[in-house]
Amino acid sequence: MLNVISPEVLLSHVHDFSSIDIEYLPLNQCTNRILAKDIIATENIPEFRRSTMDGYAVKAVSTYGASESNPSLLFIKETIEMGKMPEHPVGLQDASRISTGGMIPDGADSVVMIEYTEAIDAQTIEVYKSVAPLQNVIDIGEDITRDTIQRKKGQMIRPQDLGTAAALGIQKLWVYKKPVVGIISTGDEIVPISQNPEIGQIRDMNQYTLASQIIQNGGYPEFIDNVPDNFDALYAACKKAIQYCHMLLISGGSSVGMRDFTIDVIQKLECAEIIAHGVSIQPGKPTILARVTNIPVWGLPGHVASAMIVFHILVQPFLRQLAGEQNRPFYSRQTVKARLIRNVASSQGREEYVRVRLEQNDNSMNAIPIQGKSGLIRTMVQADGLIIIPENSEGLEQETWVDVLLF
Amino acid sequence: MLNVISPEVLLSHVHDFSSIDIEYLPLNQCTNRILAKDIIATENIPEFRRSTMDGYAVKAVSTYGASESNPSLLFIKETIEMGKMPEHPVGLQDASRISTGGMIPDGADSVVMIEYTEAIDAQTIEVYKSVAPLQNVIDIGEDITRDTIQRKKGQMIRPQDLGTAAALGIQKLWVYKKPVVGIISTGDEIVPISQNPEIGQIRDMNQYTLASQIIQNGGYPEFIDNVPDNFDALYAACKKAIQYCHMLLISGGSSVGMRDFTIDVIQKLECAEIIAHGVSIQPGKPTILARVTNIPVWGLPGHVASAMIVFHILVQPFLRQLAGEQNRPFYSRQTVKARLIRNVASSQGREEYVRVRLEQNDNSMNAIPIQGKSGLIRTMVQADGLIIIPENSEGLEQETWVDVLLF
Repeated sequence: MLNVISPEVLLSHVHDFSSIDIEYLPLNQCTNRILAKDIIATENIPEFRRSTMDGYAVKAVSTYGASESNPSLLFIKETIEMGKMPEHPVGLQDASRISTGGMIPDGADSVVMIEYTEAIDAQTIEVYKSVAPLQNVIDIGEDITRDTIQRKKGQMIRPQDLGTAAALGIQKLWVYKKPVVGIISTGDEIVPISQNPEIGQIRDMNQYTLASQIIQNGGYPEFIDNVPDNFDALYAACKKAIQYCHMLLISGGSSVGMRDFTIDVIQKLECAEIIAHGVSIQPGKPTILARVTNIPVWGLPGHVASAMIVFHILVQPFLRQLAGEQNRPFYSRQTVKARLIRNVASSQGREEYVRVRLEQNDNSMNAIPIQGKSGLIRTMVQADGLIIIPENSEGLEQETWVDVLLF
Repeated sequence: MLNVISPEVLLSHVHDFSSIDIEYLPLNQCTNRILAKDIIATENIPEFRRSTMDGYAVKAVSTYGASESNPSLLFIKETIEMGKMPEHPVGLQDASRISTGGMIPDGADSVVMIEYTEAIDAQTIEVYKSVAPLQNVIDIGEDITRDTIQRKKGQMIRPQDLGTAAALGIQKLWVYKKPVVGIISTGDEIVPISQNPEIGQIRDMNQYTLASQIIQNGGYPEFIDNVPDNFDALYAACKKAIQYCHMLLISGGSSVGMRDFTIDVIQKLECAEIIAHGVSIQPGKPTILARVTNIPVWGLPGHVASAMIVFHILVQPFLRQLAGEQNRPFYSRQTVKARLIRNVASSQGREEYVRVRLEQNDNSMNAIPIQGKSGLIRTMVQADGLIIIPENSEGLEQETWVDVLLF
C-alpha cells in the first residue's frame, strides 16, 4: 500500500538537497541563469559627474533669479568633447557647452538645458531659467556605489543585472550549472515516437512533456531510455542515470499495481532513502520521491496530465533548489484572479488541482473547469492553468474568485 | 524638432510588418517557439479503448446490482498483456484481467477496479461494485480526434503541445525562425566593456541590457558595432546590419541634439520610411521607428532605463510580430495588483511609466515608486516592474490599486 504524505511535508524536503556546481560564463550567456556569487560594485558609476541633457554646464548660483525678462549673461568657456576631460574650470560668469553624457567640468555643479538658453554671439549666452545644484547631472556614484552588493547569489539574472555588470566592466559571471534531469519512460505498451505503434501500443508522450517542463524551469533534459515493465531493465537504466544526472524522473509504474516496479527499484539503489510513496493530491497520488545522495529520484504517475501537474507543483521547486535559486520572488509563480463559472466538488483529505481554461469576460476573467480523465493530454492542451482546492475543502462554489496558477 | 506620435499609433504599425522565415525542428528544440503551421491530428488517440485502472475488463451490465452482500460472479477469461491485443472477447459471464493502459477486449465496455473484486480461485472473481459503460476506460479518439486542429499557427508551443505532437507520431514541427536583432551602440564616450574607460568615458551597458531583452522575447541578438557620433560610421554600420538583421536597434543619438545623427542616417537608408520620431511617453520620448522594407529600425534613447522601458513597451510587440506570434493570450503579459504607497504626479499629454518595487504586505502587495533619473541602471535593478499612468491623467493617488507590469 501507499504510505501517503501531504504536499507540504514533501515540499519541506527541498532543503534536504543542495545546489550543484557553478560555472563562469560571458554575459551574453547569462540571461535567466541563477547567480552563484554576488555582483559587487568594485567602483563608483559614474566615476565622474555626467550631464543628462544637452546644454551648458554652470554653477547653479550663476542662474539664480534668471527669467525670460531678466536672463543671466554667461560667457562660453569651451565646448566639452564627449568622452574627454573638460579643459577649463567653470567660474561664476562661465558656461561650458556640454552634450548628454558629457563630463561636468570643475567648478560647475549643474546643467542648464539648451532650450532655456540663447546664444547672443559666439562667446555669450543668455540663460532664462535657474537650475539647482546637481540638476541635470548624475553625480559620482549616484548610479552604482562602490563596495555595495548589486545582485545577490541565488537570484535570477535579468537584463538590468547584465547592464550593471557591464557598467562595472565585469565580463563574466559565476552562475549555477543547469541541472541535468534524466527521464526514463516505463511501460510495455509505450513505444518511441519514431516507431509505428501496433494495436495496443501507444507512443511515448511523457518523455516530451517532461523534457519541455524541465527546459522551461532551467534544467537540461536527458532522455535515458524507454524500458519495459521489468525490474532488471528499470534498475539498469536507473543505475546508469544516477552516474551523471542531478535529478531523475521515472515516468509510469509508481503505484502499487502488478506492473509497478519503481518503488522496488529505487529501494534497491545504493543510499536510497524513500521520502514519499504517495502524496495526498489529486491527480498525482501515486508519486514517489526518494533521495539518492544529492539526487532527487521521482516516480511519476504514467498518466500524462498527472505527471505534468506533479511536475508543476512538486518537482519544480526541487529543480530550482538544485539550480541554486533562492528567495524566488513571490510573484514569479504567475497567477491570475478569475471567477469560477460552476461548482467544483472535491474530496476532503487531498489537495486537488483542477485544470481550467480562462476566458475574458468584460473586465474580469472566467475560469472554466475542464472535464476529463488525467490520462488525457487534451485536458492539458485546453487548460491555461490550475486552481488548487485545499485538502480540507469539499469544493468551490460557482462565482467564487479563484487564483489560477498559470502554466 | 521631434514629430511626436502616441504609443497607440506607433503600436498600430505592428501590422506593417510580416513574419519572417520558418524552419522545421525536432520536438526537443520547440519549447516556447512559435508554431508556423497548425498541429492537425492525423489519427485518433487512442486508436483503441484503453483501461485507466488496474482491474478487470467486463461488460458493465454484468456488474449491475453488484454489492458487498450480493457480488457478481465472473470467470477470468485471460490476463491481457500490455501492448498486445487481447486474445478473447468478453462475454456476459466473463472478466479479463487488465492493467492501466491495457487494451479493452471486444465485448467489454468498462473496467472494475481491482479494489472492488476478490479472487475466489484462479478462474473466478467476485465483483462488489457496479460500473457504468466506459467507466475507467479511455474511448477511441477520446483524447485526440482525427482531423481536428490541436494547436494553431502563431501560438507558442507549450510542453503539452509537444505531448500532443508526440502522441500523433509527429517528430518535427514547423516553427518561425528567431528574428535576428542587430544592436548598434553609438556615442563618443562609450567604450566596450573589455576596455578600461578613461576619465569622461563609460562602458557600454545598453548592448547587454538590450541583448538580454531580445533573448527573453524570443530573438537572437547580434551585436554590430560601437560607433562614434559620426554620420558616416553610423551609416556604414546600419547598411551592414540591414543586410542580415530582421530588426535593428540603434542605441543613443535618437533625439535632436548636436550629436544625434540617427534620424539623418535612417532617412538616408534606401526605402526608409519614418513612422515616428518622438513618442508621447516618459521616459522614452526621443524614440525613432522607421520601416526599411520589412525591417523595423529603431532609434532608442541612450539613457539605459529609457531604452529598456521603450523595449518593454514598444519594441517587444514588433519582435513578436516578426516571430509570427498571433493572438497572444491576454494574461501572458504578467501583471500583479498592488497598492501604491504614495502619490505619483504625472504630466498630461504623455503616457508615463513609473518604475516600482513590490513588497508583500500581509495579503496584498505594496508598490513603491523608485526615484531616479532615467540614465541610472540602478532604477531598473531595484524595480520589479512598471505602472502605466495614462496620457490624460495628472497622476495617481496614494492607496490607489495599480496593475504592475512585471519585468
